[in-house]
Amino acid sequence: MRNITLKIAYDGTNYHGFQRQKNAVAIQNIIEEKLEIIFNENITLAAAGRTDTGVHALGQVVNFFASNNIPTDKIPLALNSLLPNDITVIKALEMPKDFSARFSAKRKTYLYKIQNGNFQNPIMANYAWHIKNELDIELIKEGLNLLKGEHDFSSFQATYKNNADKKKSPVRTLYDVDLRVKRESFWGNIIEIRFCGNGFLYHQVRNMIGALAALGSGKIDFERFKEIFNAKNRNLAPPTAPACGLYLVEVEYGEFTS
Amino acid sequence: MRNITLKIAYDGTNYHGFQRQKNAVAIQNIIEEKLEIIFNENITLAAAGRTDTGVHALGQVVNFFASNNIPTDKIPLALNSLLPNDITVIKALEMPKDFSARFSAKRKTYLYKIQNGNFQNPIMANYAWHIKNELDIELIKEGLNLLKGEHDFSSFQATYKNNADKKKSPVRTLYDVDLRVKRESFWGNIIEIRFCGNGFLYHQVRNMIGALAALGSGKIDFERFKEIFNAKNRNLAPPTAPACGLYLVEVEYGEFTS
Repeated sequence: MRNITLKIAYDGTNYHGFQRQKNAVAIQNIIEEKLEIIFNENITLAAAGRTDTGVHALGQVVNFFASNNIPTDKIPLALNSLLPNDITVIKALEMPKDFSARFSAKRKTYLYKIQNGNFQNPIMANYAWHIKNELDIELIKEGLNLLKGEHDFSSFQATYKNNADKKKSPVRTLYDVDLRVKRESFWGNIIEIRFCGNGFLYHQVRNMIGALAALGSGKIDFERFKEIFNAKNRNLAPPTAPACGLYLVEVEYGEFTS
Repeated sequence: MRNITLKIAYDGTNYHGFQRQKNAVAIQNIIEEKLEIIFNENITLAAAGRTDTGVHALGQVVNFFASNNIPTDKIPLALNSLLPNDITVIKALEMPKDFSARFSAKRKTYLYKIQNGNFQNPIMANYAWHIKNELDIELIKEGLNLLKGEHDFSSFQATYKNNADKKKSPVRTLYDVDLRVKRESFWGNIIEIRFCGNGFLYHQVRNMIGALAALGSGKIDFERFKEIFNAKNRNLAPPTAPACGLYLVEVEYGEFTS
């Protein structure tokens, strides 16, 4: 069996997340369906990150096993000709048997976009979180720097009832954080915040953004932000930021990187 | 009766154009419905430009007559709180009785976006025309300059059967054209072409873009482009460019401009 990996970009707006669903259309359903047409065999994808409804990806990575010997470099074109135009396969590679898009991942990068202006730009409504009140960028940067490094991120994990994360360690390492501001004439600032880490708890990025936005808008002060982070208790943290601003940008695999 | 004008931005993806429809949802239906809630009277909008299905607007202008004396500056906030997040009212002004968003317009500016790269960026699928083959920007600029000025644009008018434009003069003036290229790392070039004119025939911008893209991709040469333009015959011109790349950016009113 060949172990094939794909790098995929998608607009998550019209899908019920990445992971296959029984009664709703997920991105995994669509891609598996098209792969099965091309490979003429049953295909099951494993993904680096299971993005939620409305979350986008510029560099999601999946892998699957197949026996059909279609040339690897023909796969993107063949798949893209069948896929809807909100899902694009960028790259295909044949990998060693032990490569797993999910378990071999060494680093992941997420991007979160905020449109900070008086009026919501309707063109960005599904692609950024619109915040009306002017955010204090310097204060957000301070909060962001506090999150960098190895920490117990319990305060920012999902309050999901049957959360599988509960059994796992809530310790993660954020290798790098980055904030950039693009000035858009009429629509205010586009704030782009990037997080690169060894892994993320469920909803961690959206919860960190929720807290950073509360800090930047003056709903909480820096001391309170620190308290929330150090409390290791999700119930203290501000609301989760909306899904539409979140992008899975890159997954890195160390030795497996092509 | 007060004559109120609104400046509106919208994402046209999910609407059957601007103009009110009986069996489909147009942007006009939505805005009139919300205005009637606020003003508690029947409202009929007149628009500067009737955008087609999938066409976007950053500065559509409409006006309507109403007797309710709601303060003009409260209208955007009140409307935006009722409108879906893909339609935003940016501004409201009370105008002289003889102002017409449609007939008082002096200049209109349209923008057309092309994503020119090997792979379609799924995030831009509804917001730009994806062209795979590398376009010759300099050649497109030459074609664009030919269109500038006062001309008979019959070659670029719609081949619509009951086209109302048929009775009207096909002579229009393009005051200004502009082409900018933004390099997007992985996704290739974003080509932004702006047209500012005294008015546009139905489908004129999309037909000009269709011909310019044929020129830039080598499907026709510059001589043929000139021939097509000078023939004043729509049947010779390349196919109409898709709606998703088109934006109504600005409408100017001369003496009425605030």
